[in-house]
Amino acid sequence: MRFFKSDNTAAVSPEILAAIAQVNHGAVVAYGADAWSARLDEVFGKFFETEVRVFAVSSGTAANSLAIATLCPPWGTVLTHAEAHIERDECGAPEFFTGGAKLSLVSGAGAKIAAEDLRARLAWFEPHVHGVQPRMLSITQATERGAVYSPREIRALADIARERQMAVHMDGARFANALVALDVSPAELSWKAGVDVLSFGVIKNGGMNAEAVVFFDPARVGDFEYRRKRAGQLACKGRYASVQLTSYLETGLWRRNAERANRLAAKIAAAAPQLLSEPFATNQVFMKLGDERIAQLAREFGFYPWGPTGSGEARFVCSWDTPDEDVDALCAALRALA
Amino acid sequence: MRFFKSDNTAAVSPEILAAIAQVNHGAVVAYGADAWSARLDEVFGKFFETEVRVFAVSSGTAANSLAIATLCPPWGTVLTHAEAHIERDECGAPEFFTGGAKLSLVSGAGAKIAAEDLRARLAWFEPHVHGVQPRMLSITQATERGAVYSPREIRALADIARERQMAVHMDGARFANALVALDVSPAELSWKAGVDVLSFGVIKNGGMNAEAVVFFDPARVGDFEYRRKRAGQLACKGRYASVQLTSYLETGLWRRNAERANRLAAKIAAAAPQLLSEPFATNQVFMKLGDERIAQLAREFGFYPWGPTGSGEARFVCSWDTPDEDVDALCAALRALA
Amino acid sequence: MRFFKSDNTAAVSPEILAAIAQVNHGAVVAYGADAWSARLDEVFGKFFETEVRVFAVSSGTAANSLAIATLCPPWGTVLTHAEAHIERDECGAPEFFTGGAKLSLVSGAGAKIAAEDLRARLAWFEPHVHGVQPRMLSITQATERGAVYSPREIRALADIARERQMAVHMDGARFANALVALDVSPAELSWKAGVDVLSFGVIKNGGMNAEAVVFFDPARVGDFEYRRKRAGQLACKGRYASVQLTSYLETGLWRRNAERANRLAAKIAAAAPQLLSEPFATNQVFMKLGDERIAQLAREFGFYPWGPTGSGEARFVCSWDTPDEDVDALCAALRALA
Amino acid sequence: MRFFKSDNTAAVSPEILAAIAQVNHGAVVAYGADAWSARLDEVFGKFFETEVRVFAVSSGTAANSLAIATLCPPWGTVLTHAEAHIERDECGAPEFFTGGAKLSLVSGAGAKIAAEDLRARLAWFEPHVHGVQPRMLSITQATERGAVYSPREIRALADIARERQMAVHMDGARFANALVALDVSPAELSWKAGVDVLSFGVIKNGGMNAEAVVFFDPARVGDFEYRRKRAGQLACKGRYASVQLTSYLETGLWRRNAERANRLAAKIAAAAPQLLSEPFATNQVFMKLGDERIAQLAREFGFYPWGPTGSGEARFVCSWDTPDEDVDALCAALRALA
Repeated sequence: MRFFKSDNTAAVSPEILAAIAQVNHGAVVAYGADAWSARLDEVFGKFFETEVRVFAVSSGTAANSLAIATLCPPWGTVLTHAEAHIERDECGAPEFFTGGAKLSLVSGAGAKIAAEDLRARLAWFEPHVHGVQPRMLSITQATERGAVYSPREIRALADIARERQMAVHMDGARFANALVALDVSPAELSWKAGVDVLSFGVIKNGGMNAEAVVFFDPARVGDFEYRRKRAGQLACKGRYASVQLTSYLETGLWRRNAERANRLAAKIAAAAPQLLSEPFATNQVFMKLGDERIAQLAREFGFYPWGPTGSGEARFVCSWDTPDEDVDALCAALRALA
Repeated sequence: MRFFKSDNTAAVSPEILAAIAQVNHGAVVAYGADAWSARLDEVFGKFFETEVRVFAVSSGTAANSLAIATLCPPWGTVLTHAEAHIERDECGAPEFFTGGAKLSLVSGAGAKIAAEDLRARLAWFEPHVHGVQPRMLSITQATERGAVYSPREIRALADIARERQMAVHMDGARFANALVALDVSPAELSWKAGVDVLSFGVIKNGGMNAEAVVFFDPARVGDFEYRRKRAGQLACKGRYASVQLTSYLETGLWRRNAERANRLAAKIAAAAPQLLSEPFATNQVFMKLGDERIAQLAREFGFYPWGPTGSGEARFVCSWDTPDEDVDALCAALRALA
Repeated sequence: MRFFKSDNTAAVSPEILAAIAQVNHGAVVAYGADAWSARLDEVFGKFFETEVRVFAVSSGTAANSLAIATLCPPWGTVLTHAEAHIERDECGAPEFFTGGAKLSLVSGAGAKIAAEDLRARLAWFEPHVHGVQPRMLSITQATERGAVYSPREIRALADIARERQMAVHMDGARFANALVALDVSPAELSWKAGVDVLSFGVIKNGGMNAEAVVFFDPARVGDFEYRRKRAGQLACKGRYASVQLTSYLETGLWRRNAERANRLAAKIAAAAPQLLSEPFATNQVFMKLGDERIAQLAREFGFYPWGPTGSGEARFVCSWDTPDEDVDALCAALRALA
Repeated sequence: MRFFKSDNTAAVSPEILAAIAQVNHGAVVAYGADAWSARLDEVFGKFFETEVRVFAVSSGTAANSLAIATLCPPWGTVLTHAEAHIERDECGAPEFFTGGAKLSLVSGAGAKIAAEDLRARLAWFEPHVHGVQPRMLSITQATERGAVYSPREIRALADIARERQMAVHMDGARFANALVALDVSPAELSWKAGVDVLSFGVIKNGGMNAEAVVFFDPARVGDFEYRRKRAGQLACKGRYASVQLTSYLETGLWRRNAERANRLAAKIAAAAPQLLSEPFATNQVFMKLGDERIAQLAREFGFYPWGPTGSGEARFVCSWDTPDEDVDALCAALRALA
């Protein structure tokens, strides 16, 4: 079976395994007090060209939920897209971690939130105790439909959030793919555009089981560390998570892997552009195939139908190690279908 | 100031105060083990023509949230209307009581959920661990926009819920107003139509500070009583809540009060039918007045603008003791405006 | 059956019912925005001789839990006595309201915490993320074994708490009984001794269903109001709770009722002093009777065996309206047993 | 610095890294639907000689908390030792995961719970809604003070639990050390003795970042999988956790590593038996040294003072890869001190 289900089906990049092997000697203090974990802030600070506080966790869901729980009180609400991962694919994790804060949804093409839609949604909230209070905006970069927010678009949303004292969270499960697609700097795509806290994805782009939560304002860290511990997300043997994160940045792996994944996906998109149901941008390709053609393709290829039951849409995702021949085979099949 | 802000601005019906005074003698066991509280199941069972389990709580928010928390697990989701009280006016109480379950919203005119819209929304949920699972449907009767669900409409929704193993909750904060408007029996409007648990409202219709949670299937009560206690909702001196509930039913107060409230509201609706923004049905009247006329009316009348900021809509609510002369004055003002 | 089970088995004082009847006219804004609720801060401020913020809730459990949740984070712990009401009689309400904060227990005679025991317990906590952090001290006044803390004792505990940045909460379900027993001012027994927030009990001493949460430092109120709403504890018809609280203070009812309850209990204690298992102080009497004598007494009197199964201890509580003849009968029975 | 702080300071066993490298090829379905994860139940079933359901998580805290949350309702309480890891070292994780269930503490030498102490503690709980209800017993094997429970001791506790409908959880962070010390079978030390769910530790004994939750009764799994997902504990790339668990068992690594750790610790215990503050049993050594000698040793050795501040006690832990020369050096130093 040729696999396009998700970039999280991929193996781990050899660079990551090598980094893990390299630190595997001798006893070091547990729970992140080791020398490798101590480098996190510095390495990420260099990458983002600013002072940051960085914390490793074991999954993207944990990264998102802990970031949100730190900055949104239980009686707050997080404005986010109706198709956001935190809304649809984390089984209510943000609600669990926050003690019952609400996600308030905004629609929009490409799983992107438009500034005017954010404003319209915010108009429903009143500053009284009867309703939850908007305390956070969470956007995904790249989005769940493969689109990207430009720095200018992020800034526009962040400005609206700022007016309402809302923190800005970015779910960057595919942040590297967005960086490569937009060809901007990590700083431009995050804190310079108004992002307060970033779930920095590594797993989908070659990592094994470590993601980073990056706070761009150290004052915002608050009680994050207590929350991480109490969520079972403070790794005992911290070095093995930390070196995944630092080697990912320092070896340039983030860029190499994202470039390859995006490039392969571009081939797929180009194979049947008339079938695209979303403009192509990163490493995800969405096509309107109809249920029949989906069934046909599913004999040879692994991928997910998308949207509500019966929508006839499909998603193909490329990763850093999707085989070229699998991509070629899919392109041929799509050309034949189209 | 003539008051049409809400039926919860009203005083308490004399019948309720009299019932309270009548039980105010001597020591009785606390926490609901008194003789008056012991009558709850029987009195409500008679009203609903079936065996029920009934529990008093101090507010509608508590009634809704405890009912939901009992029947929806933390990883579940409650399908409800986007304008539902539980979504917009309880500051996230259902999320708090459930330990972070989600409300999943359905739109629809009159704050009513249509069967096809419920089906369409449910099509988004897949039976896997990545997403929350539909476990409950919550509808409001009468709705937050004054509309009512007929028994047949409730049945259609309940049938869809049943197919998905979802429990059916009814927020009956204005259940009496709906009963009177539809002229059906309490049984027809609840369990016979598929409702599993009802937040039975008393406060808005003459009560002081007691609402009832009514389970139509005793097997569903589950751990409700532990949850009520732990929420600080098990009244110490239970008799004072219980007699509000029993006297409300046994004296026919529920009907007298609801009939008067509905009748007064009908006069308002009839005063300027061309301004109505919702079809009139119970004791709430919605009108599209525009911000200017709203400001003008607000000099003499107390009422709430409705919907998002700048919508130009207003809501007028009548209660069991809204003075006739206030209604007449409002009718005259509306006629003048129209 | 002559009732000594608890002061919460009592009826409501006529003064309270009269106050309720007096405000029962006309429409007023709901949810505490009425004129009677607006007086809470002033009336309590006068009583406590300082600026306070006061909030009505429907039960002592709610008062305690909301106070605690406002001042103790989920990763914090509340130092309290092993026999505290919040530990043993609220079904985990503090844990629920806080989102899972912990109660850390201290033993001590009379259900009182001694300063040295508090220090010893605190020595177990280290300032790292692995353990919960002490953020609050909660003491009960009068205690669950009828004892009282003197202002000096409270101050000693509060000083220890202050060193550790812990807030000080007092569960004053029987605060009036303690005031009367100690013959000190409300100020001396609360903020002057270091109390930050007080659950001010009214129900056990003549009220119907309203307790007050009193913050002595307005800056500490924080997000209390959101938490109250989301717990279903913001009364819709606020006036009926507020006048219970204000009339309780302004008519001197608090003192009259507590004096009578304490006086009656003193008679019981004096009837069989050799059986006392706790020094007598307020309106609760504890006696070591043995299971046989307990069974004998239970034929005529309603009361609770106390402590773990088989302890042979019993508790007798007097309230503002315990009949004199019931007290006389119990005294006679105890004398006969002794 | 020679390290005896904890077995979690150790590196990862080469066997584990090799297993990880071996599965690192090609795309496989994410979230535990891969072929290696599919082997978990079978491999653990063989080890435990019974049908089991096994789930990987990223930390011991997560394993404990998810097991507890699955079997203990929010209004329940978990009976556990006052020095249990779940009580003292997880920052309130069980309270967080359960939605505010309580831990009820039992004291006892060696951090062990004695049957009579469990009975005595249970006598405090009454079957009413006012108090939390005992729903689980959690014991640690080996305990936080290095002791072990024999199968017979576990059975005695489990029998008491069973009478009260309490589930039995074992925190087996050092299960392998206990197995080796007792020389009994995994089955004898778990389900045959009455354990319902086991947190099976791997990390402290050579693993990287995977622990297993083992259910001995498949019917008890309940909603575990939803809870795991929503806690961010369902690993995206599941194979890397699963092979840690399966190779740990299949290569016999669990036994080799535990035997070595126990043997080294035995040498330390034997070096100064008169200083032992706990009987020696597994891979932890507790000694009463006094603060002065602790300070002296701390110049050359990394270890933790134990107990409350000023107790003068120290803990030394050996792991699978503690260097022999470090052990020899510590032995020499202890002999010199003694």
